[in-house]
Amino acid sequence: MINVLLAAPPAYWDEYEAPLGRALDAAGLNANLSMDHAPEDVDYIVYAPHKALQDFSPFKRCKAVLSLWAGVEKIVGNQSLTMPLTRMVDPGLKKGMVEFVTGHVLRYHLGMDQHILVQDGVWRHSPPPLAQDRKVTVLGLGELGQTCAEMLVQFGFQVRGWSRSQRQVAGVACFSGSDGLQEALRGAEIVVLLLPDTPNTENLLDAQALAVLAHGAKVINPGRGPLIDDKALLAALDSGQVGHATLDVFRVEPLPAEHPYWAHPNVTVTPHIASETRADTASEVIAENIRRAEAGEPLLFVVDRAAGY
Amino acid sequence: MINVLLAAPPAYWDEYEAPLGRALDAAGLNANLSMDHAPEDVDYIVYAPHKALQDFSPFKRCKAVLSLWAGVEKIVGNQSLTMPLTRMVDPGLKKGMVEFVTGHVLRYHLGMDQHILVQDGVWRHSPPPLAQDRKVTVLGLGELGQTCAEMLVQFGFQVRGWSRSQRQVAGVACFSGSDGLQEALRGAEIVVLLLPDTPNTENLLDAQALAVLAHGAKVINPGRGPLIDDKALLAALDSGQVGHATLDVFRVEPLPAEHPYWAHPNVTVTPHIASETRADTASEVIAENIRRAEAGEPLLFVVDRAAGY
Repeated sequence: MINVLLAAPPAYWDEYEAPLGRALDAAGLNANLSMDHAPEDVDYIVYAPHKALQDFSPFKRCKAVLSLWAGVEKIVGNQSLTMPLTRMVDPGLKKGMVEFVTGHVLRYHLGMDQHILVQDGVWRHSPPPLAQDRKVTVLGLGELGQTCAEMLVQFGFQVRGWSRSQRQVAGVACFSGSDGLQEALRGAEIVVLLLPDTPNTENLLDAQALAVLAHGAKVINPGRGPLIDDKALLAALDSGQVGHATLDVFRVEPLPAEHPYWAHPNVTVTPHIASETRADTASEVIAENIRRAEAGEPLLFVVDRAAGY
Repeated sequence: MINVLLAAPPAYWDEYEAPLGRALDAAGLNANLSMDHAPEDVDYIVYAPHKALQDFSPFKRCKAVLSLWAGVEKIVGNQSLTMPLTRMVDPGLKKGMVEFVTGHVLRYHLGMDQHILVQDGVWRHSPPPLAQDRKVTVLGLGELGQTCAEMLVQFGFQVRGWSRSQRQVAGVACFSGSDGLQEALRGAEIVVLLLPDTPNTENLLDAQALAVLAHGAKVINPGRGPLIDDKALLAALDSGQVGHATLDVFRVEPLPAEHPYWAHPNVTVTPHIASETRADTASEVIAENIRRAEAGEPLLFVVDRAAGY
């Protein structure tokens, strides 16, 4: 019997008990899933951020901590977590992200808001340019960023990408490093942020970065809140350097009602809905990793503790 | 010397003189392009709807009428037009249409309007379903409909298609004929209209067709105005059977300011911007067809006069 601890806020139990049970069975594992195993009995921890579990040291025989979240910034620095840590790469989450990113890029590209917001009976016939005449930059070329960039390429957008270490993505002009960031952003009309939250990416989109975008550029952040220097973005929105922003993630969530993003006429706040882990597909990833660990095979999506993701 | 008459409203001259001249040169044709050739001297007519040219009988030696518009409903029934008639299949127009259709399908799928319109500081965390759980139906599987359907398939939408005669499109459940229409529409959450305007397609989306959609379905019409029974659509919008409609084409354009579509809270009127012929790419299609005619090769995109497109 393999003891699997679901270490997560209580609502996760309702969401994961059935699909994770099914996935563990389907993987041929004789597992006992609970939110209440004694630490010394736990073989694997399936983890979502919560305050109750901060000290991993009593889990002496635990072979791996398997995160249900793609972003592991809340535990990657935890010194008591000495077993292998994996992050979630969920095919469902990836699909949802491609839908959100493509949808909002097309929204800005087509100028939808003016039609959604203004129905005044005036016929303003001005078709948008084609995607092939539009410069889009994707910051972050991990699983999510790469897949989104590839879809944007299919529409013909001029896509540039940036990542910490150099990547190659078909049809995407790829840049890396500090110098590369300016090259990736210069003249961009739409910017999509899909980077992990690490000390290196904090405030990556700051006043200097915003200044090299095309005037009136649009910013879409479905990645992580701390990627943006909020004061710099608000200043750029006020000056018109940034024409509009759609922000799905924030330093504090829910975003407080009094935050200036809610009130700014050129910001669309979305409540962290760009994408999320889907219980069915995520459970299959968790079960596959437990199967691998039991079989002595390498785990999928192991976190690089130094890089932070 | 090949005499090519541009028979179109005057504004077309500014748009087409240079690109059409370049395309004719590139095709190796010694052509004389003008809006003012004598009818008896004209070898080819490049045509966009306008009132000045209704009688084609004086164009005795004209070998073909080459439409700059995809829709030829305004001249297909002209009895004096006895030479071959081609419609425009413009790669630029097709790209623009894929962008518009995918953009608005994703807009409805993601529920964007609620975020664009309501920024009240309330955090309503309810991510949309994945595209794979959304039923989309495309009416019309010609060049435009097929290409749009294929793109929607790439996102994972459950795509059904309908056309007058049976088609096959990879990943799309294809229906045809009168019986097939009901099957194609039943339970559809998003419907896209990309049919030609013919006597057979007039009011295709009528009360009966609207009644079989999913309750609250969304309708996108970037095709032709007469495809929709306007009174039936307004009634369905009032009852909630149709949740929202984005209409780009109308029986009368510009849509009069007093038309109820402008005022309806659940309608987005866009001013015929879904896509349009692009001078550069369309000119290449025209020049290629003149080259073919001169070489005795079959013309591309010849209109079936009986079918009307």
